[in-house]
Amino acid sequence: MAITLGPNQYGKAETRVVRVYRDTERHEIRDLNVSTLLRGDFADAHARGDQARVLPTDSQKNTCFAYAKEKGVGEIEDYALDLARHFVSDIGPVSAARIDVEEYRWERISVAGRPHPHAFARASDEVRTTAVTAAAGDRAWVVSGLAGLVVMKTTGSEFSGFLQDRYTTLAETSDRILATSLAARWRYQAWPPAAGWGQAHAQIRQILLERFAEVHSLALQQSLWEMGQAVLKARDDVAEIRLSAPNRHHFLADLAPFGLDNPGEVFHAADRPYGLIQCAVLRDDAPDPGPAWDSAALFG
Amino acid sequence: MAITLGPNQYGKAETRVVRVYRDTERHEIRDLNVSTLLRGDFADAHARGDQARVLPTDSQKNTCFAYAKEKGVGEIEDYALDLARHFVSDIGPVSAARIDVEEYRWERISVAGRPHPHAFARASDEVRTTAVTAAAGDRAWVVSGLAGLVVMKTTGSEFSGFLQDRYTTLAETSDRILATSLAARWRYQAWPPAAGWGQAHAQIRQILLERFAEVHSLALQQSLWEMGQAVLKARDDVAEIRLSAPNRHHFLADLAPFGLDNPGEVFHAADRPYGLIQCAVLRDDAPDPGPAWDSAALFG
Amino acid sequence: MAITLGPNQYGKAETRVVRVYRDTERHEIRDLNVSTLLRGDFADAHARGDQARVLPTDSQKNTCFAYAKEKGVGEIEDYALDLARHFVSDIGPVSAARIDVEEYRWERISVAGRPHPHAFARASDEVRTTAVTAAAGDRAWVVSGLAGLVVMKTTGSEFSGFLQDRYTTLAETSDRILATSLAARWRYQAWPPAAGWGQAHAQIRQILLERFAEVHSLALQQSLWEMGQAVLKARDDVAEIRLSAPNRHHFLADLAPFGLDNPGEVFHAADRPYGLIQCAVLRDDAPDPGPAWDSAALFG
Amino acid sequence: MAITLGPNQYGKAETRVVRVYRDTERHEIRDLNVSTLLRGDFADAHARGDQARVLPTDSQKNTCFAYAKEKGVGEIEDYALDLARHFVSDIGPVSAARIDVEEYRWERISVAGRPHPHAFARASDEVRTTAVTAAAGDRAWVVSGLAGLVVMKTTGSEFSGFLQDRYTTLAETSDRILATSLAARWRYQAWPPAAGWGQAHAQIRQILLERFAEVHSLALQQSLWEMGQAVLKARDDVAEIRLSAPNRHHFLADLAPFGLDNPGEVFHAADRPYGLIQCAVLRDDAPDPGPAWDSAALFG
Repeated sequence: MAITLGPNQYGKAETRVVRVYRDTERHEIRDLNVSTLLRGDFADAHARGDQARVLPTDSQKNTCFAYAKEKGVGEIEDYALDLARHFVSDIGPVSAARIDVEEYRWERISVAGRPHPHAFARASDEVRTTAVTAAAGDRAWVVSGLAGLVVMKTTGSEFSGFLQDRYTTLAETSDRILATSLAARWRYQAWPPAAGWGQAHAQIRQILLERFAEVHSLALQQSLWEMGQAVLKARDDVAEIRLSAPNRHHFLADLAPFGLDNPGEVFHAADRPYGLIQCAVLRDDAPDPGPAWDSAALFG
Repeated sequence: MAITLGPNQYGKAETRVVRVYRDTERHEIRDLNVSTLLRGDFADAHARGDQARVLPTDSQKNTCFAYAKEKGVGEIEDYALDLARHFVSDIGPVSAARIDVEEYRWERISVAGRPHPHAFARASDEVRTTAVTAAAGDRAWVVSGLAGLVVMKTTGSEFSGFLQDRYTTLAETSDRILATSLAARWRYQAWPPAAGWGQAHAQIRQILLERFAEVHSLALQQSLWEMGQAVLKARDDVAEIRLSAPNRHHFLADLAPFGLDNPGEVFHAADRPYGLIQCAVLRDDAPDPGPAWDSAALFG
Repeated sequence: MAITLGPNQYGKAETRVVRVYRDTERHEIRDLNVSTLLRGDFADAHARGDQARVLPTDSQKNTCFAYAKEKGVGEIEDYALDLARHFVSDIGPVSAARIDVEEYRWERISVAGRPHPHAFARASDEVRTTAVTAAAGDRAWVVSGLAGLVVMKTTGSEFSGFLQDRYTTLAETSDRILATSLAARWRYQAWPPAAGWGQAHAQIRQILLERFAEVHSLALQQSLWEMGQAVLKARDDVAEIRLSAPNRHHFLADLAPFGLDNPGEVFHAADRPYGLIQCAVLRDDAPDPGPAWDSAALFG
Repeated sequence: MAITLGPNQYGKAETRVVRVYRDTERHEIRDLNVSTLLRGDFADAHARGDQARVLPTDSQKNTCFAYAKEKGVGEIEDYALDLARHFVSDIGPVSAARIDVEEYRWERISVAGRPHPHAFARASDEVRTTAVTAAAGDRAWVVSGLAGLVVMKTTGSEFSGFLQDRYTTLAETSDRILATSLAARWRYQAWPPAAGWGQAHAQIRQILLERFAEVHSLALQQSLWEMGQAVLKARDDVAEIRLSAPNRHHFLADLAPFGLDNPGEVFHAADRPYGLIQCAVLRDDAPDPGPAWDSAALFG
C-alpha cells in the first residue's frame, strides 16, 4: 500500500474583468467574473514544493486581463475558448484547462426615452455562464448556461397523488404557487452556433421561460423535463441540458383564526428548507461528455 | 446616579408576505419583506419580565398577513400606513410604530411576445422601500426610497484637483468609470401624491437615473447633489432626499508589462475597500422630520 | 424656499488591514476592517464638483495602512482615536471624523499541546468593534462593542402572560429555547480604561454572557435589561450600553402525527421572520452623547 | 435519435434540526443543517407529472425531525446512515439516497469559571460535515469532513522558482502570509472508527491544523499534500482525503511613498480574485469510491 497524489487542479478564481468597447460614442460593456483551473503534471509542487512547472495564479489573472484586450470579449464562449486553449498550448505542463465565466447583465439607462450611449443599470442578478474545458489534441467542451433566473407562477401548478409513508402529513393541492431560482447548463455538441453564441443563449433562455409559464405543472419534475426537452428539440447543437431548481415554497397563510378566508391570495415565502429538484435531459446519441461536467466532480 | 432604561423598541423583522390578486385571469403580485417596530411603555417587560403590555411579535407577524387580505396591498406606503396606525390606535401601550417594507420587482414572462397572465420573472435585485412611522395624535411620517439600484457610466466622470496630503498617491484622471449601488430615501411632506405612490416612485427613480447618466461628473458628490436637487425641483411633495452611494472602484488594468496599451478598455472591478459618499438634499422650509429618520438612530 | 445641502459625509469603507508584530519569534496579529467617514465643509464638491477641499478616499485608505505601521495597532480604540484626530487636526476642511473598526478573532493553533508562534485559526465570526468620533477642540467619543455573539439557552426561558389582541394565536410557554445573535455597543464616558481597552472589552463580554446564561428569562427584554444593567454596575467608565437582539426562533417540531412525543427535544431553527428586541441602558447623569451614535442616523 | 431523461435526483435541502438532550440538568445540543437527495425510478414524474412514486420532500423533512427523536443524533454519521438506509429500504422506488449534514459548533458559556449546564455560545463558523450515500444491497459510503476552517500563518511560507511566461509579473518571495479557508472531505473505507466518529473527526482536524502550522511551505500544494498524507498515515480507515484551499492573498502594503519601510508587518487582505488549490490524496489500494463523490458531479 502506498499513499499517492490523486486528481488535482489549481487556478485563479473570480477575477472581475470589465471590458469597455468605446470605438464609437455608443459604448458597449462586458462585465465578467472569470475563474481558471489548470490540470497537468504538478506532482513535484506537491511532493517537494518545486514550482518549476507551476504557472502562478497571478499570471493566470494577468492573462485574463490581457486577453480581454488582445482577443477581446465578444462572446464569453469565445473568450473562454481562447483562454483555455492558450493554457493547454502554450504552458508546457498543462494538459487541460477549465475556464468558468459568469457574465452580469446590464441595460442601457433610458434618458428621455432614448438609450444612453454610456450609462447602464444592472438588469438582474441572473448571470449568463459558460464553462469551457480544453485538453491536448485541440479537444474542447463547451457547457453554457444561466443561473439565478428567479421565476414564479401563481397558478397552473398542482401537487397531488404522491407516495405517502408514515411521515407524510402534506395536504394535496390542485392550485399552488410554483417558484424557483433556476440554474441551467447545456452542453454543445457542435459550435459555434449558426447565429452566434449570444443568439443561442437568448433562444434557450426564452424557451425555458416559455415552457415554465405554459406547462400546467403536476410536478416541478414535469416542468423541468418539458423545459429541457423543448430546448433539445429546438437546437440540434445541444447534446444535453441539466436543470437544477430549488422549490421556493410559498405557504398559504392561515387566516382562519381571524375570520378571514384565503383563496390563494396571501402567502408566506419561506427561506429554508427548500425542495431541490435536479435532472438531465439528453440525446441518446450524444457524444461522450468527456470532462465537460467534471470539475466540480473532482471535489464534489 | 441611577441606571435607567433608555430608548427601546421591538417587533418582528422580515416577514415575507406575498399577495396575489387573482380576481381576473391576469394575476397581479406584491412580494414584500415587512418589518414592524413598536415603541411605548414597555418598562415592566424590561424590569420584571412582565409581558402584560407586550403584544407578541408573532401577533405582529399575523397582522401583516391578515392586513394583506383585509386592507390589501395596493401600494406599500398605504399598506404600511394602515399597519402603523393600527398598532398605535388599537394596541394600548404602543405610542409609536415604525413599519419598514421592501418590495421586490417582478416582470411578466413574455410568451410568444405577449405578457403572460400568471407567470413572472424577478426583474432585478433593486428593491422599492418605504419606512412609515406613526405616532399618537394621528401623526405620521413617510420615507420612501429604493436600494440596490446598480448603475455605471463608462465615461463622463473625472477626479482631479483634489486636496493632497502626505498620504496621497492617487493619480488624477479626466476619464474614469463611475459605478455605484445607489440607495435613496425621500421624505414626503404631503401625501398621497397626486398621481399615486407608484407614479411618484417611478418618476423619482427615473430622475435619479437620468441625472446620473447626464451629469458630467467631476465628483460623485456632484452627481448626488444634482440627482437630489432634480428630485426636489420636480416634486413639491418631497421635503428631503438622502442618497448613499458606495463608489465601486474600477481600476484600469496595467497591461504595459505585456506590451499592450489600455486606453480605458480593460478594468478590474474591486470589491473592498470602496468609497462611500452620502448626502442629504432638502428644502430650507421643510417640516420637522420628527422620528422619520430615527429608527436606525436609536441603535446606529 | 430654497433647496440646500443637508448633512453629508464621505470616506473609505472596509479597508482590510492586517498588522503582524514579528519582533520576536512569537508573532502577534491584528486583523481589522476599517472604515473612515469625514465631515466638514464640502459644499463646493457638491455644488460644482470642486475637489480642492476633498481628501481622496484613496488617501484615507493609505493613512489606515500607514498608521498601522507608524502608530501601530495596539488596541483598536487607540488606533481609531489616532486616525480620527489626525483627520480633524491635519486636514483643514475636516471638522469631524468617524472611524469604525471591526476586529476579527484569531486563536493560536495548538501543536502538540503548545500554542504555535506564528500559526493561527479564526476563532469565531463574532467581531470586536469600536466607533470613534473626533471633532474640533480635541473632543472625542468612543463607542465600543461586539457583534455576532451567537448564544443559546435550552431552558430557563418563558414567554407568557402577554397582551392578546384579535391577531394573537401564539401559545404561552414556560420553557423554550432562547437564542440570539447579540450586538452590543457601549459608550465610554472616561478613558482609557484603568486596565486597558482589551480588558474592558473582555470584562463586558463576560458579563453579557454570564447574565444571559444566569437570568431566568421571562422576556428577552428582561434579559437585555439585566445584561446592560450589570455592565453599568461593574464599570463606572461606561455611560450607556445599547443592545440589539434578534430573537432566533426555535419552534418545537410537531411529532404527534408520527406517534412521538416531543418534550423540548427536537426543534426547527427558523431563519425569517425573527423577533428584534432593542434597548438602551444608561446612567441618568450620563454626559451628552454628542455625535457618538449619529453616523447611521444621518442616513438611517 | 431520441431525447431521454438522464441522471436525476430530488430532496429537501437545508432542514435546520436542533436536538436537545435534557435527560440531566446538563443539556447537550446538536445543531444540524440536513439535506436529503433521493434517486430511483422517477421517470413518470418527469414524463407525465405522475407522483405515485414520489415521496414528497415535505415527508423527507418530517423524517429528519422524527429520526432526531426516534434514532437520536449521537454522531452525524450515524444519523445520516440511519436516514439514508431508511429511504432506500422503506421507500420502494428509491434506489439510492444521499444525506448531507452540516453540524454547527457550540461551546458552553463559562460562568464564574465553570461551564454552564444549558447556556451555549457559537464557537466558530467552521462546520463539521458528512455526506452519506446508501444504495440497494445494504451498501453505503461515508465521506466526512469540515468546511470553513480559516487558518493563517504569518511566516514559514515562500513562493519562488515558479514557471514564468510572458504574462508573469509576480515577484518571488521567501516570506509571505499564507491564509486559507480550508475544506476537507475524507472517505472512510471501514467504519465505525474504533474510538468513534467524533474522535476520528477531532484527530483528523488536529492533524490538518498541525501540519498546516508545521510544514515550511514552498507552495500551498505542498502544504495540502503533507496535510493529506499525514491523515492517511494516521488512520487506516480513511481511503482518501480531498482538500480544497482558496489562497486568501495578503498583499504587503506599499508604504515607501510615505517614507516607511514594511518588513512583513502591514498587509492588505484581498477578497477577490483568490487562488484556488485542490488535490486528492489517496491509497493506491483504496476501494472503489462508488457514488461517494458523485452527487455534485451530477450537476457540477
